[in-house]
Amino acid sequence: MSAWKQRLTKSLHQTRNQPESRYFQLATVDTQGVPENRTVVFRQLEDEDYSLVIVSDTRSAKWESLTHQPMASICWYFSKTREQYRFTVNARCYNRKDDKSLIETYWSKLSDAGRKQYFWGRPSSVRQNDAPLRVSEDMTQPPEHFSVMKFRVLAVDYLSLQGNPQHREKHWLDESGNWTTQPIVP
Amino acid sequence: MSAWKQRLTKSLHQTRNQPESRYFQLATVDTQGVPENRTVVFRQLEDEDYSLVIVSDTRSAKWESLTHQPMASICWYFSKTREQYRFTVNARCYNRKDDKSLIETYWSKLSDAGRKQYFWGRPSSVRQNDAPLRVSEDMTQPPEHFSVMKFRVLAVDYLSLQGNPQHREKHWLDESGNWTTQPIVP
Repeated sequence: MSAWKQRLTKSLHQTRNQPESRYFQLATVDTQGVPENRTVVFRQLEDEDYSLVIVSDTRSAKWESLTHQPMASICWYFSKTREQYRFTVNARCYNRKDDKSLIETYWSKLSDAGRKQYFWGRPSSVRQNDAPLRVSEDMTQPPEHFSVMKFRVLAVDYLSLQGNPQHREKHWLDESGNWTTQPIVP
Repeated sequence: MSAWKQRLTKSLHQTRNQPESRYFQLATVDTQGVPENRTVVFRQLEDEDYSLVIVSDTRSAKWESLTHQPMASICWYFSKTREQYRFTVNARCYNRKDDKSLIETYWSKLSDAGRKQYFWGRPSSVRQNDAPLRVSEDMTQPPEHFSVMKFRVLAVDYLSLQGNPQHREKHWLDESGNWTTQPIVP
């Protein structure tokens, strides 16, 4: 296991009862070269290729942005342990046509409340009235716009604010595919 | 006062004893067009032009990135109130040559611990040993690399996860310079 993954596993364990263990901030760049940033719900860390996984909507801005520029940056700050992970990542986006089994797996893990959000209408479109966004559709099957995004971690900039001085280190995949660590100035 | 600023003032009041009221995530894009993301400490919201202010180091990656592409995105999530603000911003970066008085004002507000961080060496450079990063310099005056960054807010994407359905609205400056609000689909 890479050194950063050992750290992250520990951070997640220490903050398992804190909201911060369930989400992080994802930065992308739009087709005009302007950065975007939003909070997304963390679903899984895939062991085989060190990917952070989220679910999303193909009609969202991030789908278009990542199709254009798959490089992204994830910032995960754990306030309880005062640790920050900055992940340089490469995104792969999947809809039902790309990988039906993957889509169904992640759909099956969603709660009813989580599924309902995919039937409220096109994200960011004008909301016509203040009435509740009712859902009458069958929610057993994922809609066509439901998607899964995997962010393969290429490098990690880790910072711990505990102690004085702070501790910061870089982790990256070297040419042989091994993870290397280097302490750097905070 | 704009509607979003009223909301933000309330969010900051409700979370004044929570760590999340003190920092947010800043996304920039580097000279290669790759997004970067990191947590930064919120210093002030300037009333006259709706700018979010932070302090930084001219030797940091964000200084170079913002000089190249001043458009940035700030994500501020308040876990206690379950509210998110996504700010589309335009950055102006100041060092001592640009505005001596501004630099001295923000330096004077820093604690000793905050000032020490500017004497640890070039950020992200290789750390030579594990010895504490000692500071012997006179810290009454800001070093040349101390800087202030102001992020003028051009648009806000506000989301409240409280209630079902969620509430989301866009705020933007119209052509007459007035703030406009539009509820949108979450």
